[in-house]
Amino acid sequence: MIIDCHGHFTTVPASFRNWRAKQVEFANDPVNGPKREAAFVSDDEIREAIGNGQLKLQRERGSDLTLFSPIAGLMSHHLGNERTSLEWAEISNNLVHRVTQLYPDNFAPVCQLPQSPGAAPANSVPELRRCVEELGFVGCNLNPDPSGGNWTGKPITDREWYPLYEAMVELDVPAMIHVAASCNACHHGTGAHYLNADTSVFMQLLQSNLFKDFPSLRLVIPHGGGAVPYHWGRYRGMSLEMMERPLEGLLDNVFFDTCVYHHPGVELLTKVVPTDNVLFGSEMIGAVRGRDPNTGEYFDDTKKYVDACSALSGEDRYKIYEGNARRVYPRLDARLKARGQ
Amino acid sequence: MIIDCHGHFTTVPASFRNWRAKQVEFANDPVNGPKREAAFVSDDEIREAIGNGQLKLQRERGSDLTLFSPIAGLMSHHLGNERTSLEWAEISNNLVHRVTQLYPDNFAPVCQLPQSPGAAPANSVPELRRCVEELGFVGCNLNPDPSGGNWTGKPITDREWYPLYEAMVELDVPAMIHVAASCNACHHGTGAHYLNADTSVFMQLLQSNLFKDFPSLRLVIPHGGGAVPYHWGRYRGMSLEMMERPLEGLLDNVFFDTCVYHHPGVELLTKVVPTDNVLFGSEMIGAVRGRDPNTGEYFDDTKKYVDACSALSGEDRYKIYEGNARRVYPRLDARLKARGQ
Repeated sequence: MIIDCHGHFTTVPASFRNWRAKQVEFANDPVNGPKREAAFVSDDEIREAIGNGQLKLQRERGSDLTLFSPIAGLMSHHLGNERTSLEWAEISNNLVHRVTQLYPDNFAPVCQLPQSPGAAPANSVPELRRCVEELGFVGCNLNPDPSGGNWTGKPITDREWYPLYEAMVELDVPAMIHVAASCNACHHGTGAHYLNADTSVFMQLLQSNLFKDFPSLRLVIPHGGGAVPYHWGRYRGMSLEMMERPLEGLLDNVFFDTCVYHHPGVELLTKVVPTDNVLFGSEMIGAVRGRDPNTGEYFDDTKKYVDACSALSGEDRYKIYEGNARRVYPRLDARLKARGQ
Repeated sequence: MIIDCHGHFTTVPASFRNWRAKQVEFANDPVNGPKREAAFVSDDEIREAIGNGQLKLQRERGSDLTLFSPIAGLMSHHLGNERTSLEWAEISNNLVHRVTQLYPDNFAPVCQLPQSPGAAPANSVPELRRCVEELGFVGCNLNPDPSGGNWTGKPITDREWYPLYEAMVELDVPAMIHVAASCNACHHGTGAHYLNADTSVFMQLLQSNLFKDFPSLRLVIPHGGGAVPYHWGRYRGMSLEMMERPLEGLLDNVFFDTCVYHHPGVELLTKVVPTDNVLFGSEMIGAVRGRDPNTGEYFDDTKKYVDACSALSGEDRYKIYEGNARRVYPRLDARLKARGQ
């Protein structure tokens, strides 16, 4: 089967986005803010949003199941406060859970965390536990910059993050490292902030001994790892120089998706990063929705680019499309096995 | 001939670095700060620093001439104030000028600008003019984030930058977009901030109509363009979607160097970016100084990676190694011609 490790519910009804805008507007005046019940999305609305969107594209493009999480850009941990972040995380995660209940064959749930600038990462643990233990989520999205592009917090290798990693290890769930919207005009969201975060976080990991402390912690760096595989030689050199260890020492714990929207990029990724560390992902429906006028194909139909990597063996393809996702997300594997898959 | 468009005087004597540290320490107490004369570096010191460093490697690796500028990491526009930035730019540029006088066959000068957080970019014009008109500099390094990793200023497409571009166009000099050190612990300098700046600035350009206003402005994005060529499809899609124009519309004005430290990266760069837009660069002696234990070769010996790109024709190689640099830096071309080259 073909598992897409990176999909967001970007096609939510406008009413849902509007609720969030109102919630943020009244962040410090909760009495007059919107009621939680008003964020309701009906089953029919979900079916319309998904059926005409992600599900349709899954079928057209030939993937089977997507690890599905709330819209990254709308997590916007920098807006509102810790209370609104928690409420919004609960509402968004519950909605994703309903999608996966309506379409259990097609989507498995990944949660957002109730992060907030300056709030202790430990405060995200209860929502992570609720999602995993009560609702069957298989992973989480961890925002390495809750300040939304200003990077006012600490690197994710700082000990303040350790309680969250302890919970992830105990629950045996990985995190995809994924920022939300950018509120800094120098950094476009999907065109710069996303990729820069991937790059900065990888370098934070390279500089640290995080995985000595958490040997079974697993982190997925999306968008093909930002700039990292393209600069693999730079990082190999820096790791040897700064840390006196080969870069490959990170690869028990760090994984990359294939959200790179042209064939030469995916080919480079699969050439320089070991196949065990690459997970198929498309980020659809996401940052780039159009078609390449040269080919008529969707830019984000990344399966085509993987399929065209002629150097990959059948075993490599199995790993990228399915095996690695089952290994990195053991709760996904258990969920699939429970369904006879 | 082989022109390396990207080299910094990273091998300055320790006394020179110490002078800068003192200058910053006494930024608000200039009376007790170090005297300008104390930043003196003798000809012998220059010969030792260059002769055992960049010049030696030029000869070993087979390049002929390097576009040479002050150390990027030491520009540190975020330290001190506008007065110290100007003094430091003048001193650093004068030192680079002396290198190019001692070794006119091997180095051509590129200046740093006296930027400072919050200072108008227009204030950098006099030093640019001095360097170009009085000292024969052929280009400048423009720091898109004088705040050193916090990005507190405006995108480089904002009109506040226009007076600088007007001067660049009038003087017919390009800028390499190059940040200095990072003071934000989330972003390692050479491992993240450099590449992120390249990516963010490219996206700023994509989102703007800067080149409608300055059709002959030329900007070189170093470090192989950060994440950009690896995500070329993403940018092609975003340009069509957001701006309704092909990404290739930027290519009269935007160029990339080859500072990518492994062959697959350089191969991708030369495959997706038209050959007219790629300038040979190595950034040596710079971010990565070691050797690849697998091959015994220096990571930053980028000429080897370009040479190994079998798809490049002889004409392509001429452009990457020489022709494009002469075209993008017309004052370099004039300087070479005046020397019979």
